[in-house]
Amino acid sequence: MYDRIKGFRDTYPESMGARRWLFDTVESTARGYGFREIDTPALERTEMYVDKSGEEIVEELYSFEDQGGRDVALTPELTPTVARMVAERGQELSKPIKWFSTRKFWRYEQVQQGRFREFSQTNVDIFGSAEPDADAEILAVAAEMLTELGLQPDDFEFRVSHRDVLGGLLESFDDEDATDVDTEAAIRTVDKRAKLERPQYLDQLVAAGLSADQAERFDDLLDTPESELDELVAFADNDRVSKAIENLQAVLEAADDLGVREYCTLSLSTARGLDYYTGTVFECFDATGEVSRAVFGGGRYDDLIGDLGGPDTPAVGFAPGDATLSLLCQRAGVWPEESLTTDYYVLTAGDTRSQAAAVARELRSRGHVVESDVADRGFGAQLDYADSIGAETVVIVGEQDLESDEYTIKDMDSGDQTTVPVDEFPGDLERPTFADFA
Amino acid sequence: MYDRIKGFRDTYPESMGARRWLFDTVESTARGYGFREIDTPALERTEMYVDKSGEEIVEELYSFEDQGGRDVALTPELTPTVARMVAERGQELSKPIKWFSTRKFWRYEQVQQGRFREFSQTNVDIFGSAEPDADAEILAVAAEMLTELGLQPDDFEFRVSHRDVLGGLLESFDDEDATDVDTEAAIRTVDKRAKLERPQYLDQLVAAGLSADQAERFDDLLDTPESELDELVAFADNDRVSKAIENLQAVLEAADDLGVREYCTLSLSTARGLDYYTGTVFECFDATGEVSRAVFGGGRYDDLIGDLGGPDTPAVGFAPGDATLSLLCQRAGVWPEESLTTDYYVLTAGDTRSQAAAVARELRSRGHVVESDVADRGFGAQLDYADSIGAETVVIVGEQDLESDEYTIKDMDSGDQTTVPVDEFPGDLERPTFADFA
Repeated sequence: MYDRIKGFRDTYPESMGARRWLFDTVESTARGYGFREIDTPALERTEMYVDKSGEEIVEELYSFEDQGGRDVALTPELTPTVARMVAERGQELSKPIKWFSTRKFWRYEQVQQGRFREFSQTNVDIFGSAEPDADAEILAVAAEMLTELGLQPDDFEFRVSHRDVLGGLLESFDDEDATDVDTEAAIRTVDKRAKLERPQYLDQLVAAGLSADQAERFDDLLDTPESELDELVAFADNDRVSKAIENLQAVLEAADDLGVREYCTLSLSTARGLDYYTGTVFECFDATGEVSRAVFGGGRYDDLIGDLGGPDTPAVGFAPGDATLSLLCQRAGVWPEESLTTDYYVLTAGDTRSQAAAVARELRSRGHVVESDVADRGFGAQLDYADSIGAETVVIVGEQDLESDEYTIKDMDSGDQTTVPVDEFPGDLERPTFADFA
Repeated sequence: MYDRIKGFRDTYPESMGARRWLFDTVESTARGYGFREIDTPALERTEMYVDKSGEEIVEELYSFEDQGGRDVALTPELTPTVARMVAERGQELSKPIKWFSTRKFWRYEQVQQGRFREFSQTNVDIFGSAEPDADAEILAVAAEMLTELGLQPDDFEFRVSHRDVLGGLLESFDDEDATDVDTEAAIRTVDKRAKLERPQYLDQLVAAGLSADQAERFDDLLDTPESELDELVAFADNDRVSKAIENLQAVLEAADDLGVREYCTLSLSTARGLDYYTGTVFECFDATGEVSRAVFGGGRYDDLIGDLGGPDTPAVGFAPGDATLSLLCQRAGVWPEESLTTDYYVLTAGDTRSQAAAVARELRSRGHVVESDVADRGFGAQLDYADSIGAETVVIVGEQDLESDEYTIKDMDSGDQTTVPVDEFPGDLERPTFADFA
């Protein structure tokens, strides 16, 4: 037999049901806010990713030359594709453009808990608004997705920051003496702050161009509480920092108006690893800390679409995936039981297929899941099968019963059964069960 | 700007809405019959397809060597993957196994109308029953999908046959004299019957090993009407043919019991191109002939899972896709209008964001699509945007109105508007509109 490829998942019905619930909830929340679904190719030209992230990205891609000699890659993320789509229709699309899509992406990375080489996520983005209201709406839709999944306010927190706070602080240190600080390297270091030992962390800041003393001071500043942000601004005495803090405060104020301020914690050390963020950044964490990785994250990336050759378009978004979101739901006890459920099994006993099919059709037209025999099985084998698929009610359509114009209704939980006249089932009942006729 | 890859599609929200409706309908019908959703990898080992279809299949695959040195391919179809999954859990799974999944597949083929290199389809299969009831349930769920899409009985027909009728007839010709008929080549020729000129078609049958006279007689037999099947059996005097006809009649009888016999036409020349079918085969056609290609097809493939290294498992299924099904829906006039619709736009005039957000939340909690300003726009620009997204009702939350504790409700179709007291909107109304307050 063939092997499944490492980092890829086969999903059987029991766990697929739970994943489907998760993405249905995420999608219907996004739809409620007016985000519209799009669909995008699984393959794009490799150069799109190389131009954005440099030649080294190829090592993380599933890339190859197709039969037509094109260098193509399985898409590792949505943004470059969306940039292409916005560029193609830019003028006709009314702004803001609010799009979502749930799909798979592929990255050749180390496989670990909550990380696969093939993964699904829902990208949710607003294009064409640079206003704090857009950042706040992203926070609001993210929070509502989680509460719709059944999570409570004390289950999760959004750690919110602004990319320019870090950038501006580093700039002000850079001005202090003539050292040349590599801002992006320093920000990537901050992104790993929680994972690194402190000496190692400080060493990496020094490697990025800060003095040992600056590294300490810089790091202390990252713990500035919200109430002392004004002092941070005064201390930094840097235009970029003050504008960033002002913007961050406006985003949090808008989040307050949208009713989601309570989920947001100021966290200047939240950096997001990716270089392309330009404003608000946030990460969702398990408030209990049991799930130690960020559950998902997002932020503002105003330059990216222009950099990718599209029209200059401010953008803000986030992308929850099932690999980590399921860990949070499981921790919080809201993950659905992974089992099969079936509303009705219509059992045929004797030559009653036509009548049984009519009953099944009636029940299906009421929106129920209804199975019937497709394997020419006897009474006992059909009952066993009904049990194996978690059937709630079995409707027995038997030759003998039919002689007295009756069906037998069996409750699978209790094993109780009763007969009902053919013309009373299902009758006007939306979801007739044993209890209706007992 | 980068190019989209040939044969791949970008789908913008207007057309995505229609595609989503199509697959939602297809999926909910399958769910009603107790088919359970699974999810499967986009990449599998290339040898899986080569072992099944021969080395020449590689030309139709997107295949490559991954970073770990594995020969992998973008999956061109679901069956080998499902065979792997059935093999892996074979013993624990209660039979019949009824699975569906909607996903993308990739084939490097000629791009034409209704055919792309990346395409989506819903695979619907029953594993573990060799009974005609299973074939009939496949026909039933296929028919119900189409009627649920709004198609009428005279919009489509299922052309139904049995693979062994062709195989057995060819066998009986083979017995007549000592020529060696290449059955698979002859069946592939029959599959192209409608596309080929008659002389060319007959030539290909001769090339497959029939004499010119046999080719004519064989072809005449393919037009045997249902009422004369017994004569066909008598003429062929071949066990394989008589068993095939018996099975086909049992399938049609079961389809009758399931209420879908009216959609089925006997069509012995329906062959399906693929070699792996072993019993019932069927293709759905536009009954008016306007869409000339088969809309989708399916059939029984009892040997394939065993051949692929899985446990011997009878199987029957089909796979509708949006590329052709949309053509049929468009022809029949049931394809939804491709446009954006929005239930409510909540307009902020002045400093009313918090109150507007509360109104939007209330309306969303009733399941509606509600947008509000995220771009700090003025009154007129917000109204223009509301118009561009097809908003039905605009709720104006204005500073002045609020002073007298009122909102303004505007019907976007007529332009009419009226004011309502704040505490009456949305009140107990599920979907309050202008008409409720006029």
